Amino acid sequence: MEFPYASAPIKKLMVELLSAVDEQLGSSLQQTCTLPSDVQHFGNSSDTARASLHLRSGLPSSQIDFILGGWIHCKLPSGGALNITSLSAYLTSLTDAPHFLLELIQSSSTSLVLILDLTPRKDLILHPDYLKTYYEDTQLDRHRQHLQTLPEVRPYISPSLYIRAVLSPTAIVITVDTGASESTNIEEIIQDHISQIAKDLLNFWIESCARFVRDIEASERAYIGERDRIIKNKTIEVDLGSSFPRLFGQEIADRVLNALKEYYNK
Amino acid sequence: MEFPYASAPIKKLMVELLSAVDEQLGSSLQQTCTLPSDVQHFGNSSDTARASLHLRSGLPSSQIDFILGGWIHCKLPSGGALNITSLSAYLTSLTDAPHFLLELIQSSSTSLVLILDLTPRKDLILHPDYLKTYYEDTQLDRHRQHLQTLPEVRPYISPSLYIRAVLSPTAIVITVDTGASESTNIEEIIQDHISQIAKDLLNFWIESCARFVRDIEASERAYIGERDRIIKNKTIEVDLGSSFPRLFGQEIADRVLNALKEYYNK
Repeated sequence: MEFPYASAPIKKLMVELLSAVDEQLGSSLQQTCTLPSDVQHFGNSSDTARASLHLRSGLPSSQIDFILGGWIHCKLPSGGALNITSLSAYLTSLTDAPHFLLELIQSSSTSLVLILDLTPRKDLILHPDYLKTYYEDTQLDRHRQHLQTLPEVRPYISPSLYIRAVLSPTAIVITVDTGASESTNIEEIIQDHISQIAKDLLNFWIESCARFVRDIEASERAYIGERDRIIKNKTIEVDLGSSFPRLFGQEIADRVLNALKEYYNK
Repeated sequence: MEFPYASAPIKKLMVELLSAVDEQLGSSLQQTCTLPSDVQHFGNSSDTARASLHLRSGLPSSQIDFILGGWIHCKLPSGGALNITSLSAYLTSLTDAPHFLLELIQSSSTSLVLILDLTPRKDLILHPDYLKTYYEDTQLDRHRQHLQTLPEVRPYISPSLYIRAVLSPTAIVITVDTGASESTNIEEIIQDHISQIAKDLLNFWIESCARFVRDIEASERAYIGERDRIIKNKTIEVDLGSSFPRLFGQEIADRVLNALKEYYNK
């Protein structure tokens, strides 16, 4: 998968993340993208918005449901561009370990929104042991705490209540804003801080979530399967369904969203 | 219940909130406090820390489990004092409507932490209709949005992952810091902004949660009852269990926490 519009450090990060997936999980994944070609690449008629989605399914024997990489590029009336780059990785109900989520939203050269999380598969209140295993004992919060010490970083509050609810308590949900500062720029903050944290979190996810075998009972599998079904459908509805018709027109938006929904609910 | 150490606007707010409870829910509550007198008021031997808890149980016919008001006053080595003022209101499993939570933590004359929320009784991912009913359709987020416009307000991240997980996506979890500003002070921000929002939220809770009858099936009651049991026990464990031994000594801390736990699990 290529990222023609991303900035150099985001492109480098994505290449490294996808290489890690390929090296460590490649043998558990289909070799080619499962989506139709007109869903893998598409744009609007005036060529102001383009996007790409790349989905690799897990093999039936693996715990991986699928890995979805994607980007959206959209020219802004101001002359700049909005670039969204994302990587999400979903597990099957053979395990209850968290999913992986990364989203980088850059709407100018001086500001970036970062969402980076291992999203829980269970209600953390009813399952305090799950909170302890994946979020407390692992000290996952240290990554968020480190980024919070940077003066350019502030918490970001998603407008979607669903997105706020689906994220874990250690989710990194931040705005990086370098404003008129001449001493730091977004590229440096990605290189010096964000990249390493994203790679650490993906490696932790690969080792401790995707490859680690948990003993899940059948009744629990049904619960996790139903919760995941809601997460997958609701995430594309909130994340893509709200912007795609505006960016690409209703016809293309329907084609892409329906292809994803069909895949998710098969 | 009296608040001898709270600042004037916090005292005024608490009196107004407790009056609203008494006027609108008084006929559904026991008239006197259910706790032993040495749990209603207690302090450490050196008199540097004092606290008070006031718990009124709901009558068996009502949907109210109990209303718990409290404060902690603790002299700081710096010469100042830490004052925590709280009001929480729990419902029974006759309804699945949210609980009410207010906590004001003031550690200096220029800074305040506010936690104000209707805490969900269900997993919001598995129950999107619950998210819609109580948080989206009600536009509860407008209160948080309003406070966020004030320059003195920043998001507060609780050190406890459990507290982060138990709160709703519209929870107001903020630090108010007036620093060296001469033009605004904490008292004004409480009077002009926080008080009205706290009263609005409590009134909404009284009308739409405590008094409104929902049709809950028996299986769902068991689920809600179990989830609530975890919430009540975990909240005192995290909120009081971590600080009470240090503030009041192990003996008094055990007495108070055991009295609450006994009440919660009876």
